[in-house]
Amino acid sequence: MSETIGFIGLGHLGLPMATNLLKAGYSLLVYNRTASKAESLVVQSAQLVSRPVDVVTSGGIVATIVWDDAALESIVMSDGFLEHLGPNGIHLSMSTLLPETSKKLAAIHAQHGSVYIDAPIFGIPEAAIAQKLWIPFAGPQKAKERVRPLLQAMGGQGIFDFGEEVGAANIVKLIGNFLIGSAGYSLKEALSMAEKNGVDPKAVVDMLTQTLFPAPIYQSYGKRIAEKTVLFSQSAIPLKDTGLFKKTAQQVESATPIASLLYELLRSDEGKAYTLPTASSKPDTSS
Amino acid sequence: MSETIGFIGLGHLGLPMATNLLKAGYSLLVYNRTASKAESLVVQSAQLVSRPVDVVTSGGIVATIVWDDAALESIVMSDGFLEHLGPNGIHLSMSTLLPETSKKLAAIHAQHGSVYIDAPIFGIPEAAIAQKLWIPFAGPQKAKERVRPLLQAMGGQGIFDFGEEVGAANIVKLIGNFLIGSAGYSLKEALSMAEKNGVDPKAVVDMLTQTLFPAPIYQSYGKRIAEKTVLFSQSAIPLKDTGLFKKTAQQVESATPIASLLYELLRSDEGKAYTLPTASSKPDTSS
Repeated sequence: MSETIGFIGLGHLGLPMATNLLKAGYSLLVYNRTASKAESLVVQSAQLVSRPVDVVTSGGIVATIVWDDAALESIVMSDGFLEHLGPNGIHLSMSTLLPETSKKLAAIHAQHGSVYIDAPIFGIPEAAIAQKLWIPFAGPQKAKERVRPLLQAMGGQGIFDFGEEVGAANIVKLIGNFLIGSAGYSLKEALSMAEKNGVDPKAVVDMLTQTLFPAPIYQSYGKRIAEKTVLFSQSAIPLKDTGLFKKTAQQVESATPIASLLYELLRSDEGKAYTLPTASSKPDTSS
Repeated sequence: MSETIGFIGLGHLGLPMATNLLKAGYSLLVYNRTASKAESLVVQSAQLVSRPVDVVTSGGIVATIVWDDAALESIVMSDGFLEHLGPNGIHLSMSTLLPETSKKLAAIHAQHGSVYIDAPIFGIPEAAIAQKLWIPFAGPQKAKERVRPLLQAMGGQGIFDFGEEVGAANIVKLIGNFLIGSAGYSLKEALSMAEKNGVDPKAVVDMLTQTLFPAPIYQSYGKRIAEKTVLFSQSAIPLKDTGLFKKTAQQVESATPIASLLYELLRSDEGKAYTLPTASSKPDTSS
């Protein structure tokens, strides 16, 4: 495989995914706002460029995975990006975005004869390295078939087709992240109650993940909470994505009682390392 | 096995569990407030009695599974119940209760030389019939060993020991039910958002239960929501148990933001068959 792929966004997920592509034999043109993050890829023969447009091959594939809607829009609108991609070009957009942003960008690409596919990524960096990512995708059928091997090479162990309408995959992504957040905070609330009642949180997690909740999310969050390590890696992602979920729901007048509460809980926890309260942290009233 | 067991409470779970005991060869003395519910058991040679005390064998085992704390307390306090159970008697209490009720009842039993074990049941009636119940239990070690085969015979595919302190198993039960409710309502909120955005809820559930949430709860609730059937069987149990979770948490000053919201959501849904809103149920503004 000597096909050259443009790759923009070398964050916690983007970097291992680009690395996987190089290992699979693809040639890469890479761009990242902070150029130094490309060092390990350059060593492996990727070519680092200084403008987004320089990763674009006419009629080729550009993959992007950036922080948010605004970052992606500024790339797409940067000088020459769309003109260069042109007819038969595919923008494989892997960021977590508002579905309406995906739809808007898809329309803009269509005006230039190119295709926009949304394919946001489920997985932590360790899962990208281990090639165990889950990827929902949506867009025109032929273009999806063309990018499918690429998604597999990036580390997608499972790729799920949500039809031709761009935006659908991002709806699934926002739902997944909302359910992860809800499960995590519910576990935190439940295990805190257990511990304050003298019941070992680890024993509770052990039973529940062997019975009702044998799911990776409950296993990993349960372990983190029981061991009093950081719940959400102090990341700003859960807050951002819960905000996107709320906005997407509210645009269609779908009620968000739990997402709204979760948003407030995440906001109040933002930047804090989460630890369970312990008996010794209770106010000392003995003296 | 010709050991005679006392059994009180022939509800949706109690009846199939008692049936399993008969099939396993135990002899049963049964009591239920509504005597007619014992009919199928009597046909299978169980002996129906007219007062709770009449199921009690001195030094034997009495299993109870009743609606709530008050129902269980009235049985324990009924004439002769504790006196009859006496030294070496075991009360195997399988109802979902406030942990403090379990502790109080354990102390009262101890005054009569008998032992109280809490062993609330995780499972729907179909799981009881299929002998696929999950049972956490807590209480004095020797008594737990004596009732373990009984719990297995009732349908316990997994029995989890939460130590000697009575009440711990009910804390686990309340946590499990809270997490089930939280997962169910979160899914409902998420799939409603998907549907109103034109994304098929079934496809979302299919992906999520193959990836992040391969748990029976997400599978069964996801299916029910996607197929617009009843979410919580119009049962009063989730509301009752969420109330018990809140009370147990608040007694130890553990915060309950999600449980409190869930309680309000359950209260507003009480008695309603839950169905997802559909496009056609939107207000018609076309005419």
